[in-house]
Amino acid sequence: MSAVPRETVSIDLGDRSYPILIGRDLLQDAALLDRYIKSRHLLIVTNEIVAPLYLSTLTQALEQAPGERRIHSIVLPDGESFKTLDTFGLVVDALIEHRLNRDASVAALGGGVIGDMAGFAAAAYQRGIDYIQVPTTLLSQVDSSVGGKTGVNHPRAKNMIGAFHQPRAVIADIGTLATLPEREYRAGLAEIVKYGFIYDTKFLAWLEANAPQLAAREDAAVIHAVKRSCEIKAAVVGSDEREQGLRAILNLGHTFGHAIETATGYGAWLHGEAVGVGMVMATDMSARLGWITDSERTRVVGLIERFGLPIKAPAIGAEHARRLMGMDKKVLGGKLRLVLLRRLGEAEVSGDYPAAALDDTLREHFGT
Amino acid sequence: MSAVPRETVSIDLGDRSYPILIGRDLLQDAALLDRYIKSRHLLIVTNEIVAPLYLSTLTQALEQAPGERRIHSIVLPDGESFKTLDTFGLVVDALIEHRLNRDASVAALGGGVIGDMAGFAAAAYQRGIDYIQVPTTLLSQVDSSVGGKTGVNHPRAKNMIGAFHQPRAVIADIGTLATLPEREYRAGLAEIVKYGFIYDTKFLAWLEANAPQLAAREDAAVIHAVKRSCEIKAAVVGSDEREQGLRAILNLGHTFGHAIETATGYGAWLHGEAVGVGMVMATDMSARLGWITDSERTRVVGLIERFGLPIKAPAIGAEHARRLMGMDKKVLGGKLRLVLLRRLGEAEVSGDYPAAALDDTLREHFGT
Repeated sequence: MSAVPRETVSIDLGDRSYPILIGRDLLQDAALLDRYIKSRHLLIVTNEIVAPLYLSTLTQALEQAPGERRIHSIVLPDGESFKTLDTFGLVVDALIEHRLNRDASVAALGGGVIGDMAGFAAAAYQRGIDYIQVPTTLLSQVDSSVGGKTGVNHPRAKNMIGAFHQPRAVIADIGTLATLPEREYRAGLAEIVKYGFIYDTKFLAWLEANAPQLAAREDAAVIHAVKRSCEIKAAVVGSDEREQGLRAILNLGHTFGHAIETATGYGAWLHGEAVGVGMVMATDMSARLGWITDSERTRVVGLIERFGLPIKAPAIGAEHARRLMGMDKKVLGGKLRLVLLRRLGEAEVSGDYPAAALDDTLREHFGT
Repeated sequence: MSAVPRETVSIDLGDRSYPILIGRDLLQDAALLDRYIKSRHLLIVTNEIVAPLYLSTLTQALEQAPGERRIHSIVLPDGESFKTLDTFGLVVDALIEHRLNRDASVAALGGGVIGDMAGFAAAAYQRGIDYIQVPTTLLSQVDSSVGGKTGVNHPRAKNMIGAFHQPRAVIADIGTLATLPEREYRAGLAEIVKYGFIYDTKFLAWLEANAPQLAAREDAAVIHAVKRSCEIKAAVVGSDEREQGLRAILNLGHTFGHAIETATGYGAWLHGEAVGVGMVMATDMSARLGWITDSERTRVVGLIERFGLPIKAPAIGAEHARRLMGMDKKVLGGKLRLVLLRRLGEAEVSGDYPAAALDDTLREHFGT
């Protein structure tokens, strides 16, 4: 066992409350898994990249735990392009084939795509069974761990089919990040810096001071960044579980980012990369509106760049982007509401801005 | 307008409360629809049988209402065999094609199959938008109107994929029953008599006294039967929205009935017919256990028979039936719990019976 401290973030949702356990070597800790995974019958949903790395470790630890457990698994193809209704159907097939009952659980072992699909399968199977998240990417550890969103994409729009379904526990083993490609690790950092921009200038300053340690994936820095990110997301989601109000600020950069992801085809840009550029654009627009200063804009863009993330959008064209954003879920009654920085450390959702500010931002970054 | 009285059953679920409106000529009542359907943008989900009968009536009434409404529709093939994930996908495609936003609604115009699929599409689309039920069969008026269950079948088991999602309103126009085939009407009566058996001997006596009027589809009798059925279902579901305890008594006859439906292929037997025979079997088993008397058993079977429902099971074989029931959702931790009549007017869920009572019942009705 490592001497690295373990952290727990408690997500308070009444009778659906659950813990996020953050630490190293959690996957092989049979006693810990036994404490948080009560079902005797599980289906582990994972993908072809993660399975060779961690599936047997997790399966063996679960089987070592006291009491008999039946553990099945399904290994899906990797990638956002498989986050479809068809793949969801394969997971349901496996649940039925292995005759999982209502007291069984689904465990999601992988990144956000696996978590979203496994979570939606758990939400819909027999109208809802338990699920456990075992996120193996930085992005999913800080993003999918909180909020209860599950679902799949439609060929014409992301995350269009899904459910709100809370996990029973999240086991975030930062040891799994060792095998994460650099580009994906950085995409996770984009989501982490977002929490600083929208909510917490103190955390933002900590990120600036600890950028080298984070870039080097040092345990203590990673554990703190994951913990603080989950705490902030939990505070924002808080009493707004169904995403009517404040929760939307978590989408800083996402409307612009979705346009990038859709225009370039799911998977060409990583979600975190697209959000990174999207945050640059939202920050730029906030500066155009005079809500933040030019030096604050520079500070935001600088931190994104410092984590090795792209800050330049692809030339998809302003009009094309506008059409793609028109299908986005953030459009309510036809009006395009955007998440902008009212000031550094405070985001708000607003449709109350001069049209020119959006036009200029789109043209500047996406080209005409 | 008809002089037939209208009734309303209020389903009390806090901020998800909704009314069930029961009467004649509701579909063409623009003012009433406007009062209960707030969305300006709707997708009506219906099927090829119902569409020629009622789709234009409903569409025109919605368009006549004050304020602009955009009404789209999708016409699905008819039948339980199309209650699949693929058909669900077609409804989602239509929602996306017509660019319905989160403040739009789905309206289900048809029987239980349409209600289940449209409801699940509404539940899953953008993780949940509003839906309105316009049930056009007797079964769906008394069954699907209360309880919030939505979903689709899996080739290997019924209702395996779905969600709990409450409608905003149910418009039960008994005028639509005029076009319902006799066999389907009777299948609806099976569900109605069930409420008498499990919960209310006074209603049971009323049903016996008013059997001729109900068989003749007389307005006042039908309206009362629908109203009382919805009230009883609401009382049973009550504080047990997620189906942990009491709610399961609504499944009287369903475990046996599901075996019949699955063995004979979805659609060969109507759900209500299968449940009718299932209730005969559950009642027979209750009598074998000495929980009800032989004359009470005769009374139950007699009322089912009087409504022209089959009381004889198909010879699918006891062992085959047992295997099919093993996949049923009512099996918790491997133990087969059945809904039985503790006494007439009171059902309970029990796994505490001698194995012989179930064996004898299965062999008696399904053959060896």
